[in-house]
Amino acid sequence: MVKARKYVVKRYFQGVPKKDDFELVEYELPQLKTGQFSVKAEFISVDPYMRAYGYRRPIPYDQFGFQIGTIIESKNPDFPVGCRVVNHQGWCDYSVVTDLTENHSHVYLLPDLQGLPIELALGALGMPGVTAYFGFLEICKPKAGETVVVSGAAGAVGSIVGQIAKIKGCRVIGFTGSDDKVQWLEKELGFDKAINYKTADVNKALKDAAPKGVDCYFDNVGGELTAAIYKQMNLYGRVALCGCISSYNEDPTTYKTSSLLPLILYKQLKVEGLIVSRWYEPENRWPEAIAALAQWIKQGNIKARSHVTEGLDNLYDAFVGMLAGENMGKALVKV
Amino acid sequence: MVKARKYVVKRYFQGVPKKDDFELVEYELPQLKTGQFSVKAEFISVDPYMRAYGYRRPIPYDQFGFQIGTIIESKNPDFPVGCRVVNHQGWCDYSVVTDLTENHSHVYLLPDLQGLPIELALGALGMPGVTAYFGFLEICKPKAGETVVVSGAAGAVGSIVGQIAKIKGCRVIGFTGSDDKVQWLEKELGFDKAINYKTADVNKALKDAAPKGVDCYFDNVGGELTAAIYKQMNLYGRVALCGCISSYNEDPTTYKTSSLLPLILYKQLKVEGLIVSRWYEPENRWPEAIAALAQWIKQGNIKARSHVTEGLDNLYDAFVGMLAGENMGKALVKV
Repeated sequence: MVKARKYVVKRYFQGVPKKDDFELVEYELPQLKTGQFSVKAEFISVDPYMRAYGYRRPIPYDQFGFQIGTIIESKNPDFPVGCRVVNHQGWCDYSVVTDLTENHSHVYLLPDLQGLPIELALGALGMPGVTAYFGFLEICKPKAGETVVVSGAAGAVGSIVGQIAKIKGCRVIGFTGSDDKVQWLEKELGFDKAINYKTADVNKALKDAAPKGVDCYFDNVGGELTAAIYKQMNLYGRVALCGCISSYNEDPTTYKTSSLLPLILYKQLKVEGLIVSRWYEPENRWPEAIAALAQWIKQGNIKARSHVTEGLDNLYDAFVGMLAGENMGKALVKV
Repeated sequence: MVKARKYVVKRYFQGVPKKDDFELVEYELPQLKTGQFSVKAEFISVDPYMRAYGYRRPIPYDQFGFQIGTIIESKNPDFPVGCRVVNHQGWCDYSVVTDLTENHSHVYLLPDLQGLPIELALGALGMPGVTAYFGFLEICKPKAGETVVVSGAAGAVGSIVGQIAKIKGCRVIGFTGSDDKVQWLEKELGFDKAINYKTADVNKALKDAAPKGVDCYFDNVGGELTAAIYKQMNLYGRVALCGCISSYNEDPTTYKTSSLLPLILYKQLKVEGLIVSRWYEPENRWPEAIAALAQWIKQGNIKARSHVTEGLDNLYDAFVGMLAGENMGKALVKV
């Protein structure tokens, strides 16, 4: 019998998630049935959508999320023992994958990473990378020479979007929350300009950085920063809305922001929300994005960075740290 | 010499436009130069964009807007004396059309209205009709059987959008501001349901009227009504944003609304702002829309209503009345 531990959410988050909203439950893994297999986790992902989407599930629920693990027992010939697998089993050290047909089960054998570190399968070569790739290319439809703004630019998705935009010949401006991140974006990732929104005069800094206005905006944060960026967008600008991390800890019944509608109207902007599962179902296009991203990383055109916390016991800290913007690149926990 | 009168805006509007923001100026029409012609106005349009877009011009400016008139003198062989013309000369009884190449000059001979009343060239067969036609069909991309919501449904644009949606086989729900308008929309225009947003429980009324959720939303008003409608939109819903009349009299530096971004994100909505001039330049597609709309009116599939105020002296009242929602159908002034 395998002793397993998993995080269960006992209470819907209000404001910043609290440690005792979670319970770390110990239990014995059940026997496998036909088609099932069990996994020992190696890396577990912490992502903003874990804050945003919990309210859709009945309480209590097992904390969902991507992980990479090794198959330790299997009654499924497609998933043999010893293989590495990417799955959506969440915050747990051992688990049984019970239903491959379940919506958003997102279980697949670790793809060919062309020798790159396996943890990238949770970052640039996983959900965040695929989000950046399709979200930016298919919704922003960037053209060479255009000006692209990315918010949450040092995060798992934003850092990849900015680098894809550079590959596509765009001028790239990133908004981020610390001077260290500004340095990283400008000096290592090749952003034309990075701006610390916490200390800069955002309007002025953006005007200086984007004298011809903004054509594409990849938005991870929402809120007042987004309102300031919309003000400098050009006619027919395109916005890919990927996240609203600035509002995830707000109470949606009372939270108010500057209205974006007049700006969308007068500039005739196109704003589209995106969730990466749209490129998974009905048609799984993730392999296409992962292959392209792996190629770019191998060629040195994209640098992928992981921000690793050690230990299952530190998942909560890694999660709230990521929500507070402590990570550069992809936030992960190594089990 | 022709004595002419025109409305000049002396001060940018703040809140509801005030009578003394305008000055009614009397002057003598200048002599025509080659290529110019003079027009005696018959009908003058009052529209929400007159409230919204004035800030873009230096003060003082002549109040812009569409009118229909007759050419009384001409040094332009394309615009002969005696012909009727649609132009953007604004709030004036006589004027000289000086520059046909000017951006948004929008001067064209009255199109063939197939015997329909000429004032429709300012409504269903003019700018508002073209806005409704392309904005709804090309941005909402409605499919038969889908549920369509229109706000400002009894206005010049909204009333046409709803009827086009019925022609296309959609279920149509309109939001409007009085019980009289509700009656008109349901009994005469064939809306499946009209809701008085001032008196109804908007969330409940919409849930009852749209049990399968909302696929397309044609938005003329913005504000909290729009937030309520977004909440009931379906995955991948499409929003054509045509106006924000609810906020035109608000101070944009302090005006706050419920944030729409989380809804756009989670439902993966596509929101696009539109201004009708995009179908005029670089390519003039207005004739295509006007011909289709005239056909539908002749067939009885679209009912076009004008709300006519008499007299140049009453333009201000007609304008603020329209902003307050006093009109059913297209608000016009007969000179």
